[in-house]
Amino acid sequence: MSDRLRPSSTLSIAEEVAPLLQQVRTASPLTHCITNAVVTGFTANVLLALGAAPAMVDIEGESCVFAGIAAGLLVNLGTPAPEQRLAAREAIDGATASGTPWVLDPVAIGALPIRTALAHELVERRPAAIRGNASEILALAQMSAGGRGVDATDSTDAAAEAAASLAERFGSVVAVSGPVDLITDGEHVIRIANGHELLTRITGGGCALGAVMAAFLGAAGDTGTSALSAVASASLFYTVAAERAAQRSAGPGSFAVALLDALADTTVEHVTAAARVEMHAA
Amino acid sequence: MSDRLRPSSTLSIAEEVAPLLQQVRTASPLTHCITNAVVTGFTANVLLALGAAPAMVDIEGESCVFAGIAAGLLVNLGTPAPEQRLAAREAIDGATASGTPWVLDPVAIGALPIRTALAHELVERRPAAIRGNASEILALAQMSAGGRGVDATDSTDAAAEAAASLAERFGSVVAVSGPVDLITDGEHVIRIANGHELLTRITGGGCALGAVMAAFLGAAGDTGTSALSAVASASLFYTVAAERAAQRSAGPGSFAVALLDALADTTVEHVTAAARVEMHAA
Amino acid sequence: MSDRLRPSSTLSIAEEVAPLLQQVRTASPLTHCITNAVVTGFTANVLLALGAAPAMVDIEGESCVFAGIAAGLLVNLGTPAPEQRLAAREAIDGATASGTPWVLDPVAIGALPIRTALAHELVERRPAAIRGNASEILALAQMSAGGRGVDATDSTDAAAEAAASLAERFGSVVAVSGPVDLITDGEHVIRIANGHELLTRITGGGCALGAVMAAFLGAAGDTGTSALSAVASASLFYTVAAERAAQRSAGPGSFAVALLDALADTTVEHVTAAARVEMHAA
Repeated sequence: MSDRLRPSSTLSIAEEVAPLLQQVRTASPLTHCITNAVVTGFTANVLLALGAAPAMVDIEGESCVFAGIAAGLLVNLGTPAPEQRLAAREAIDGATASGTPWVLDPVAIGALPIRTALAHELVERRPAAIRGNASEILALAQMSAGGRGVDATDSTDAAAEAAASLAERFGSVVAVSGPVDLITDGEHVIRIANGHELLTRITGGGCALGAVMAAFLGAAGDTGTSALSAVASASLFYTVAAERAAQRSAGPGSFAVALLDALADTTVEHVTAAARVEMHAA
Repeated sequence: MSDRLRPSSTLSIAEEVAPLLQQVRTASPLTHCITNAVVTGFTANVLLALGAAPAMVDIEGESCVFAGIAAGLLVNLGTPAPEQRLAAREAIDGATASGTPWVLDPVAIGALPIRTALAHELVERRPAAIRGNASEILALAQMSAGGRGVDATDSTDAAAEAAASLAERFGSVVAVSGPVDLITDGEHVIRIANGHELLTRITGGGCALGAVMAAFLGAAGDTGTSALSAVASASLFYTVAAERAAQRSAGPGSFAVALLDALADTTVEHVTAAARVEMHAA
Repeated sequence: MSDRLRPSSTLSIAEEVAPLLQQVRTASPLTHCITNAVVTGFTANVLLALGAAPAMVDIEGESCVFAGIAAGLLVNLGTPAPEQRLAAREAIDGATASGTPWVLDPVAIGALPIRTALAHELVERRPAAIRGNASEILALAQMSAGGRGVDATDSTDAAAEAAASLAERFGSVVAVSGPVDLITDGEHVIRIANGHELLTRITGGGCALGAVMAAFLGAAGDTGTSALSAVASASLFYTVAAERAAQRSAGPGSFAVALLDALADTTVEHVTAAARVEMHAA
């Protein structure tokens, strides 16, 4: 975990959102994304709507220096072309040297050999957070053969043990996305029951959340928030925005548009009113 | 043609849509897309809106294994970077070995040498379907020097002979997109007069249809539908959805959004009521 | 500067928009874009909404021939992967040989070494236009260490001297994007106060403008318009469309959609009524 972040402790996640959201919207944390080719545009738009400053620097020779000046970094393995694999390693070098917190999203690992090997290699570099669906978290913890792709074919509770194992082994906060999100640092377990089914009907619904986590982790260094709180706050804020967007939508196309609008205008009051969160010791 | 698909026969295309659409929406066929960098996000969103499960696996070392487990595969040559060319060949190996039906979309071949040579090489691998505008189909059949890019500068009827020739030579269903879509397996010719001019004012309007064809071909293996019917059903469903979307649109931006909404909520009844289809022997 | 374009002279920019816009909408100039992976889809949609014909040909072996047949070319350095660097050089060869006007967009140069070196190399090839924010223009003129990424951290007036220097040195029209756009050919300075803050809350807001400039420069060869007028007309048209879009928007998501709709339906009358332009000698 990045040394910019203080250790986690018992807290009310809904209350933790306020200073982080304010920090993101006023300081615009520079959020470095190495992400898959399918969702680059949407991810950048999610970060801009939120108030963060995205930058997709994913070539060798530039990603190390950039990760060093960024507030947060996302490494998403959705389309890990050779050049991007080199850039990801380089970026993690830069992030590690500078204490930039980074998020690993092991998209669709399990059946696909190159990304699976890469995820196992990169997780050893101790990301501040790991985000995936249950299949991916199980595969990363080597407790499952993995799913058929980017779908979650296992429930988030089925990955609770795998998440705890990864958290302890790598010092990472692990977030398992699903109908109920499960987030753990190995000591505490948080469940967030917010969100909407339409998030699974648009591409990048999960991938962009990884970028939002990187932005919140970037802000957390300045607000003195734990990585656990930053990751949980990102999930809560994002899923409440998704609920508000769903109310304005006529289908998946208009939902994606409304989600960007909602990320820009969702307030702390919206979050507090809608939050369905529980936390307990691991 | 994939051995998962039964031979084509005389049928009413509008009636064939029902079981295929139900199969796509309930079984979510895993649809493997190797497509161009401009339309990856939109294509994934089209498939998700439709109910299919997209996966854009386009690197060497992963695309062969993935094409083997996918229900359908799209190979679109819109931005054929070196890595993607390797991945396309590998994916076709995997698809061929597993009987996964695949669609070839020879985007903008003719004037551009690399994709033109690649298209001529790949078509020899006998895709289940070939989709393009008239210029591209003429160029693939080597009956024209090709157009000035991705535009259709020839009418679909001008490509009827070229389409028939490709169908016979490679055992493929050939779909020529235009104001009236022309689809043939060499024995039958289907013309679909649905669609809307706004499909030409958004990027990926045609490319995403190739992905929808791959999803329908994937479903056709389970419903016992011919490749001809699957391709024609995909075209008809997609163009009827486009007509419904155009009614809700104020221009190309809102049309792209409405198209995704319409792909999610267009029913068999909508298709039957709107279909303008004719079929005759070749 | 391309020899297709006549020298600039004193003129009313709002009046110059009419013939260019008509030419773009009737002749659909083939606009070749080598641009970053984040904004390819949005850029293509902007050009299609405008009435131009986009083509994203960015591989070695194809980009030279394509730049030769295109009406205009954009070279945007936002994600300069190795293959794209080769393709950019090749495209400029083709553009130079054929007199195709081209636009250089030196995205985020300054801190990032590969794109910075590439921008300094490519600008020597004398683009018809250079578009960037103040930080980028200062970095290209080597008058600043550059910004923290794609943000404008300097005002456009702060880059006036740098813009003039680049214009004189390379014979290019230089456009500095910001709250007030500054455009100069070294002899005249044009300031355009149109636009909307939401353009900075969507990805590709500036990058797509570079593509619109390439399309207008492509049209200018046929209408006998100067490069200065073409670049200023593109900026004015685009920013007026953005103002109209902002009126129909509820946030950044709906703004991006409305911008595409507005690019399709904004008229010369809208531009004339809304234009806030001043021009003076340099």
